[in-house]
Amino acid sequence: MSTTRPLSRHPVLVESGVSTRTRVAIVGGGIIGLASAWQLLRAGCAVTVLDPSVGGGATNAAAGMITPSSEATFGHEALLAASIASAARWPTFAEQLSADSGLPVELCREGTLFVAADHDDELVLARQARLLERHHRSVDRLPSRAARRLEPALSPRLAGSLLIEDESSVDPRQVAQALRVAITRLGGEFRRVHARPQLRAGRVIGAVPASEAACPDGGGPCHADVTVLAGGWATTDLATGLGLHVPIRPLKGQVLRLRPAAPDVLHRVVRASVHGRFVYLVPRSSGEVVVGATSEDVGPDASVTAGAVHDLLHDAIEIVPELSEAVLVESLSGLRPATPDNLPIVGAVGIDGLVVAAGHGRDGILLAPLTAEAVLAEVLGQPSPQHADHFAPQRFSRTEGP
Amino acid sequence: MSTTRPLSRHPVLVESGVSTRTRVAIVGGGIIGLASAWQLLRAGCAVTVLDPSVGGGATNAAAGMITPSSEATFGHEALLAASIASAARWPTFAEQLSADSGLPVELCREGTLFVAADHDDELVLARQARLLERHHRSVDRLPSRAARRLEPALSPRLAGSLLIEDESSVDPRQVAQALRVAITRLGGEFRRVHARPQLRAGRVIGAVPASEAACPDGGGPCHADVTVLAGGWATTDLATGLGLHVPIRPLKGQVLRLRPAAPDVLHRVVRASVHGRFVYLVPRSSGEVVVGATSEDVGPDASVTAGAVHDLLHDAIEIVPELSEAVLVESLSGLRPATPDNLPIVGAVGIDGLVVAAGHGRDGILLAPLTAEAVLAEVLGQPSPQHADHFAPQRFSRTEGP
Repeated sequence: MSTTRPLSRHPVLVESGVSTRTRVAIVGGGIIGLASAWQLLRAGCAVTVLDPSVGGGATNAAAGMITPSSEATFGHEALLAASIASAARWPTFAEQLSADSGLPVELCREGTLFVAADHDDELVLARQARLLERHHRSVDRLPSRAARRLEPALSPRLAGSLLIEDESSVDPRQVAQALRVAITRLGGEFRRVHARPQLRAGRVIGAVPASEAACPDGGGPCHADVTVLAGGWATTDLATGLGLHVPIRPLKGQVLRLRPAAPDVLHRVVRASVHGRFVYLVPRSSGEVVVGATSEDVGPDASVTAGAVHDLLHDAIEIVPELSEAVLVESLSGLRPATPDNLPIVGAVGIDGLVVAAGHGRDGILLAPLTAEAVLAEVLGQPSPQHADHFAPQRFSRTEGP
Repeated sequence: MSTTRPLSRHPVLVESGVSTRTRVAIVGGGIIGLASAWQLLRAGCAVTVLDPSVGGGATNAAAGMITPSSEATFGHEALLAASIASAARWPTFAEQLSADSGLPVELCREGTLFVAADHDDELVLARQARLLERHHRSVDRLPSRAARRLEPALSPRLAGSLLIEDESSVDPRQVAQALRVAITRLGGEFRRVHARPQLRAGRVIGAVPASEAACPDGGGPCHADVTVLAGGWATTDLATGLGLHVPIRPLKGQVLRLRPAAPDVLHRVVRASVHGRFVYLVPRSSGEVVVGATSEDVGPDASVTAGAVHDLLHDAIEIVPELSEAVLVESLSGLRPATPDNLPIVGAVGIDGLVVAAGHGRDGILLAPLTAEAVLAEVLGQPSPQHADHFAPQRFSRTEGP
């Protein structure tokens, strides 16, 4: 962060608590903004979410895997710890959200099957198994025959597999819809505008439409005690306008949605290493299967490309041959908000009245419960939940250090 | 045709000529219905086209190749002769249509390059070359290096190629739009309804909305001296309602539209045999490239499937590697109207006031000028143009023969 002023704990709130309702403006209606808004409303805050396209962006393209073990990589222990902590919150998060919204929030808890297409891919699985064993995470090495008993649609030509039982998935579109309804039911408001934080006398006092053109609702400023920047990869630009350095870049991910002829083609998340390339298949309760994803550092380009669609289809069909007959319902891309160290940026950033909650990369759905709790703690002036301290924005401060 | 009554030449017209304007109802606003409507209007008829989705259907998905030689197959000499006759009409057709509509109707006349991915595919090319030489059609065998001078984007790993110079392509969406405008300018009318022919006292007296629900325009019957059934594969059902046997089935074709990063990736139609599978690439003046097509005898199912999209992308990228980076703009499928002998069904069918013009399979765009001329001749009671006599519906009559 480019300011040298000490971080403050939103003095208005500390003084008033929630006896007079704390007003919070949330810029960005993706999974992070929505989950934060919902938790703030539950805690008694008055909340407005500003986004021209609530639930769009990366959330709309996300696969919804709650799979900390599958996604664990060497050297990212802080992310693994936070992911485990957030995954543990998902069952309660889903249950409460369903109760608050009156809508289903289905958590598919059948675990992950991680399969290898050939013997080189088996080495990738073996390495993942060693990593998980070192972290005392549940993982079972299965012969292909056992894997096919669990998932009969798998190709008979696979080389090996791992079963990771304590993993799950949700449908991010279903979750976003439930969050919208819950937020509205709890008195939260939505404004369909491109917004930016409004600075006055060194303090953020709310959010304003980014331009006249960005304001189809004709509304003016949204005054708030605390403004949360939850704009995904666009957060960097929002922060730059305040003189802050928040290093988030778009990381393009292309995904497909397939509708197989038969329902229940798959029963759990299937991840695969296919001749050195990763692919995942996430079944939805609707019968659809989400296939993803590329990871392309190409700037703010959300196009769907021939080569990426080819590769995703190729790998999906190699792992589950009958997907060849599936209807290609949708090809789309999302721009994940990526940070230099793959950890999100959540917390105060040295300007009164301002909190950042962004940069979740491919883990926005997974980390939403922990992040929302961290945002709430920040707004209420309480300590950050365990493992969310790694998200502190200060690690990227350009004015700190020797 | 299941009627035993002799074919009649629309007595109303023969008696009245066009001195009182002949009223024609055309059921179906695809390329065949539109081209016929335009020619009838030019000849002085009063024309109404009835279709809920003008220019949709197979026309919307068509690649627009005017390539009689490339598509020639052994044993289909009648189709080849008709295709050559219709292709010869395309330059004038395009020029007049552009004049009547005030819109561009671009005919890309750079010929077809037919390439082979491997040495087995070269045998396919050699066979096509022999067929064309036997019919005295222009064809040049080119080494790969010469083909790449014409189309530098081609893969350097191709096995051989043919250049067929007297072929061309159009953009069917551009043609359909020009036809709509020309028809309107010439006083033709459109009704956005699902319609069916109306039979009274053994004579078709026009078209009526197929149901109340099919009639959003609130209109009633469309009375006509002649009704043309140009409903593509749906023509069979329209004819069955009149007791006629018109054997047309849907033949699904899946196609893609790609937008390459660079314009002018291709300059002409490229057809390819890729390890025994056919693919074509048709460049548009917009820079887009149409990639097609499957040929699936699966009934009235217009879904886009994972396996088909995979195969089209695979083959396209194998022939033109840089298409991997192209944006996948659209994946769609069309239902071609296919007949048992691959020739269309155009002409009177034994019920007064009725003409059929359908069943053009993959050749609707190519055969549109000749077909429209044949429909006009039929309505005016004049002889069919040369080579269109092969289209006569009587060849499928169930009541003829021993």
